[in-house]
Amino acid sequence: SGPPPPSEIKNILTATVSQEISNRQKLFTTDPISPGSIFFLPNGTKIFNKLTQFMRLQQLNPKFGFQEVITPLIYKKSLWEKSGHWDNYQKDMFRVEGQDIQKETYGLKPMNCPGHCIMYAKNDHSYQELPLRFSDFSPLHRNEASGALTGLTRLRKFHQDDGHIFCTPEQVSQEILNCLKFIDLCYIKVFKLSKGYTINLSTRPKDHFIGDLPTWDHAEDVLKRILQDSGKSWNLNEGDGAFYGPKLDIMIKDHKGKEHQVATIQLDFNLPERFNLKYKAMDNTFKRPIMIHRAVFGSVERFLGLLIDQNLGKWPFWLNPYQAVIIPINTKETDQIQASRNLLNKLRGTEEIKDSNVDIAPIPMNSFHFNVDIDERAEPLGYRIKDAIIKNYSYLIIVGENEVSTKTFSIRSREDRKNIQHLTEDEIFNMFCQLEQTYK
Amino acid sequence: SGPPPPSEIKNILTATVSQEISNRQKLFTTDPISPGSIFFLPNGTKIFNKLTQFMRLQQLNPKFGFQEVITPLIYKKSLWEKSGHWDNYQKDMFRVEGQDIQKETYGLKPMNCPGHCIMYAKNDHSYQELPLRFSDFSPLHRNEASGALTGLTRLRKFHQDDGHIFCTPEQVSQEILNCLKFIDLCYIKVFKLSKGYTINLSTRPKDHFIGDLPTWDHAEDVLKRILQDSGKSWNLNEGDGAFYGPKLDIMIKDHKGKEHQVATIQLDFNLPERFNLKYKAMDNTFKRPIMIHRAVFGSVERFLGLLIDQNLGKWPFWLNPYQAVIIPINTKETDQIQASRNLLNKLRGTEEIKDSNVDIAPIPMNSFHFNVDIDERAEPLGYRIKDAIIKNYSYLIIVGENEVSTKTFSIRSREDRKNIQHLTEDEIFNMFCQLEQTYK
Ligand SMILES: [Zn+2]
Ligand SMILES: [Zn+2]
Repeated sequence: SGPPPPSEIKNILTATVSQEISNRQKLFTTDPISPGSIFFLPNGTKIFNKLTQFMRLQQLNPKFGFQEVITPLIYKKSLWEKSGHWDNYQKDMFRVEGQDIQKETYGLKPMNCPGHCIMYAKNDHSYQELPLRFSDFSPLHRNEASGALTGLTRLRKFHQDDGHIFCTPEQVSQEILNCLKFIDLCYIKVFKLSKGYTINLSTRPKDHFIGDLPTWDHAEDVLKRILQDSGKSWNLNEGDGAFYGPKLDIMIKDHKGKEHQVATIQLDFNLPERFNLKYKAMDNTFKRPIMIHRAVFGSVERFLGLLIDQNLGKWPFWLNPYQAVIIPINTKETDQIQASRNLLNKLRGTEEIKDSNVDIAPIPMNSFHFNVDIDERAEPLGYRIKDAIIKNYSYLIIVGENEVSTKTFSIRSREDRKNIQHLTEDEIFNMFCQLEQTYK
Repeated sequence: SGPPPPSEIKNILTATVSQEISNRQKLFTTDPISPGSIFFLPNGTKIFNKLTQFMRLQQLNPKFGFQEVITPLIYKKSLWEKSGHWDNYQKDMFRVEGQDIQKETYGLKPMNCPGHCIMYAKNDHSYQELPLRFSDFSPLHRNEASGALTGLTRLRKFHQDDGHIFCTPEQVSQEILNCLKFIDLCYIKVFKLSKGYTINLSTRPKDHFIGDLPTWDHAEDVLKRILQDSGKSWNLNEGDGAFYGPKLDIMIKDHKGKEHQVATIQLDFNLPERFNLKYKAMDNTFKRPIMIHRAVFGSVERFLGLLIDQNLGKWPFWLNPYQAVIIPINTKETDQIQASRNLLNKLRGTEEIKDSNVDIAPIPMNSFHFNVDIDERAEPLGYRIKDAIIKNYSYLIIVGENEVSTKTFSIRSREDRKNIQHLTEDEIFNMFCQLEQTYK
């Protein structure tokens, strides 16, 4: 069957790099027992949880205003028939069946939208409640062909920082502009993607779509107008919209120059129709809300893969599973070992709430817990420093005789071997808190 | 078909109470489109996330020492054949199939254990790494009969605070004792379950088990000895063990007196055998680790249902989706409204990191965000106070002329109408932080 085409080779290279870094840093693994699903190892899970926590916090900002929900993963076939997935998306879905007598057929969800429509439809809504914005971090499953599965960027199981906005026609522009601001906050301000991103406007697919042509034309025009008003540059990507509506796809490039879709903003007049969604307008009539589907990371797994592709394992402090290593200079000196271990416990933040009545008290809510290790191996100092740098620890903390007697520790960053600071336990802890709080 | 048996009536009553409270507090809902799966509404999601966050933090305590992982939800049939689930648990499982040409058959996981065995087996292990403890909050699916589905206590989709400990035979007792301590920390110290809990020792099922009888007898003896040494009282529950090993089930009673299984500790010599798990012992030979399955909440959904059953919607502050309400006395006074809204923003913790260079800056990591509302309705003060108490707000904050001029606010708790404190914005925020940090 010949060599893979050039685009495939690029795919493979990116996947190889992230797998190599993952092996070194013990981030994730895969197994043929579940092709296209990631096993996140403890270090990868730490990064994954930090990313979702970051997103949860930003969604609280009243400028964005999402409310998180947790929704089912399997729904009866009739839901997918109603939503149009069974007609237009079936071969990308996994079918689920009970093995009891009833053998009811379900679909394992590839998207959260129909579930959110069900939730919306459970209550009456007034225009005063809109926009209503649901956020959902559910795992999603899409049956990608096994040949297409690549690293973290194309999977069968993945999580989105998914959100659906139910709003009035008048609110659509502002909501989409807010989504674009959210994307800037994430990609430019916090993750500082050096090459920025491009925007694709993806329009109605040739076949496999629901709804009528005038509705599609209108939705595409709305998106075009918003893009023009925003002053951002964009490309037309004809025929690549979702089956229920056109979308803006945010694309970023990996270090090989291959483009990946990350964030997405989709405008949908069709699902609200199919699920008969309504709100009571100011004039007391019932109107149809408009639905905006949006994700800022897109697939959390893919976003993580692209971070690895960009930083090659040199994580910023707040995301680093290797935030600091403590190296006692002379591992035969019990003073140095003891001081190192005390510092380790302090930085790991495993102190319990003070309570003299119990054997074990809880660790407090919202406390800081840094990923700090100790290297007590009886190896030369230079060897252990070199090893720490290879492992990409953000900070190296050296504990010698001097440090033990003055109770201040020598600390240097991964990058700057010349700038050594001398800080107390509390000063180091507070510096780390400051770095993590501000996503540095 | 006659009236339901008495045990069923108890079930229904408990479910009715929690549904009634859920409706009032907007915690969760269900829909026949996915029987036995919960739709957590924003308020229920807040509680759910707090519970899992509590558990994540406690697992960091080196006395327990779990490492969180994220694992696939679907695995090829061959995994379930190897683990014994296909022979012994098949009718409780959902079968999953791709709808492409290959139509490979998968099982939707009812338990995390086989996935964790796969992860363990991917690397060589030395006795020095043991005990190795994986934690996992994956959603699980079990195909319960539709007649058995009840409220939050019996579901088809649920999440466990699941964990698997891989250890040497010498470590088993200590690990199980630590699990019991973890359970005490949770049930007695933090959640203060007034009636405590009982322990059942569940032994080998009559049929549907794997492994040989001497192994089972040994495992049951180990658990009996640990129970005797612990000095705790326990009951024998013959034939109710898991198909792979005997277990200790922690039982608590709902307000109707019905017992529910919550935490569980299971001792397993069989899965390590089936997955050919090994570690290199001190004498350089390869030995078989022992596996302990354990969950402290058990099903997070069931635990949450039992909390509702116990508190009837009067949540402790840290879990309350209604932590405080701010009531301006005279809603026509713009000063009072403005002071109330400023306080609202402060307590919701939606302040961005200070950064003059950007339009929108991120909300900091690990910040506090209280569930605070404002009641600006033009209703009499007494009416709004009564309504706030019905809604079970933990604190009521009243803002009048006096409060605006002194910049201190009247705050009282739900329980104690006579004890009114006068606190500044910062004092209220700090008091709330203190309450939440210490799980009050
Ligand atoms: Zn959607
Ligand atoms: Zn298990």
